[in-house]
Amino acid sequence: MAAIEFWFEFASTYSYPAAMRVEKLASAAGLDVVWKPFLLGPLLHSQQGLTDSPFNAVPVKGKYMWRDLARVCAKEGLPLETPARFPQNGLLAARCTLALPEAARAGFIKAIYSENFARGALISEPDVVARAIESVGHDAEAIMARAGSDATKAELKANTGEAIHRGVFGSPTFFAGDGEMFWGNDRLEDAVAWQVAPQEIMSIGGTI
Amino acid sequence: MAAIEFWFEFASTYSYPAAMRVEKLASAAGLDVVWKPFLLGPLLHSQQGLTDSPFNAVPVKGKYMWRDLARVCAKEGLPLETPARFPQNGLLAARCTLALPEAARAGFIKAIYSENFARGALISEPDVVARAIESVGHDAEAIMARAGSDATKAELKANTGEAIHRGVFGSPTFFAGDGEMFWGNDRLEDAVAWQVAPQEIMSIGGTI
Repeated sequence: MAAIEFWFEFASTYSYPAAMRVEKLASAAGLDVVWKPFLLGPLLHSQQGLTDSPFNAVPVKGKYMWRDLARVCAKEGLPLETPARFPQNGLLAARCTLALPEAARAGFIKAIYSENFARGALISEPDVVARAIESVGHDAEAIMARAGSDATKAELKANTGEAIHRGVFGSPTFFAGDGEMFWGNDRLEDAVAWQVAPQEIMSIGGTI
Repeated sequence: MAAIEFWFEFASTYSYPAAMRVEKLASAAGLDVVWKPFLLGPLLHSQQGLTDSPFNAVPVKGKYMWRDLARVCAKEGLPLETPARFPQNGLLAARCTLALPEAARAGFIKAIYSENFARGALISEPDVVARAIESVGHDAEAIMARAGSDATKAELKANTGEAIHRGVFGSPTFFAGDGEMFWGNDRLEDAVAWQVAPQEIMSIGGTI
């Protein structure tokens, strides 16, 4: 089945509504979702020199973002609470995503985003991650052991490297099958529409 | 008549489609548009330490922005050309906006955005600005003289100061009558809807 790729970092605020919406939109268009966890920190550091979320580094943007996120979630009927910390450390949850079989990933990912943004839980805590693993019917101990393996660590590193290579600079980012990239929850509908029917667009700006 | 405020900088890329769309959307909702030119440079410098557009300072974001802008304009049926320079100096055009009577501003503003993004003209050139003034039936020499007055210069400075004071950090930014702020072409529909029917939103994030 044709698919769109959903590249995400668990700390990212706007990735929460996107993660909760993507399956329904993709499914209505006859598409699968391929979930691609990566770590945003290394991108923000290498591309922008940032050592914190841009929403913390630039407070006036952060203040707006929280208000806008509240509006977005209200519009989508999604619960929202102030996170326990921002940004949170999503490393363990990202590795556990890759340690789970593909069929279990969507449910786990949505559970972690809900812990972060709807329940105010610390998603770096093994207990919280274990609860999310169990919610999709898997054994937390076994999945966490696999999450800590060299193979899983290498896979997450490779994802992050691939994200940089393909021009990702934020989360969520969507790729259509032809490589067209879309950034942000606001572009989810466009990404799905593009995968169904790619367009001919005259590119500009290359010589500026 | 109720209105939404449209705060804009002529150099801003996504402000081009927003400026071309706002009147139609506002009018369909029974709203006026109050045009508020300001200079984005001082905001970006004071808030983010930037001395150039963030799309130049972070090339990976710039590359995506030009592609995304092309998609947005194609979707709206708006012509788009690579600008002569990016970002352009919109100071003269911003002052001329304020020197024009309010009824002539919308036409002038759209003419300048078209010069910048659809015709590849240098909007810092007096000849180009004069052409836009004449396109709305005014005398270019008289308007430019008024644009250079201390009163007009002070009004633009005051707009920029008010933008900073109200938490603006980019262009376009829209304000509903109750002070609710929306940033970006993607939020134009939401801003209009809010002005028509404000919502109760639980704010979060204040204590992080």
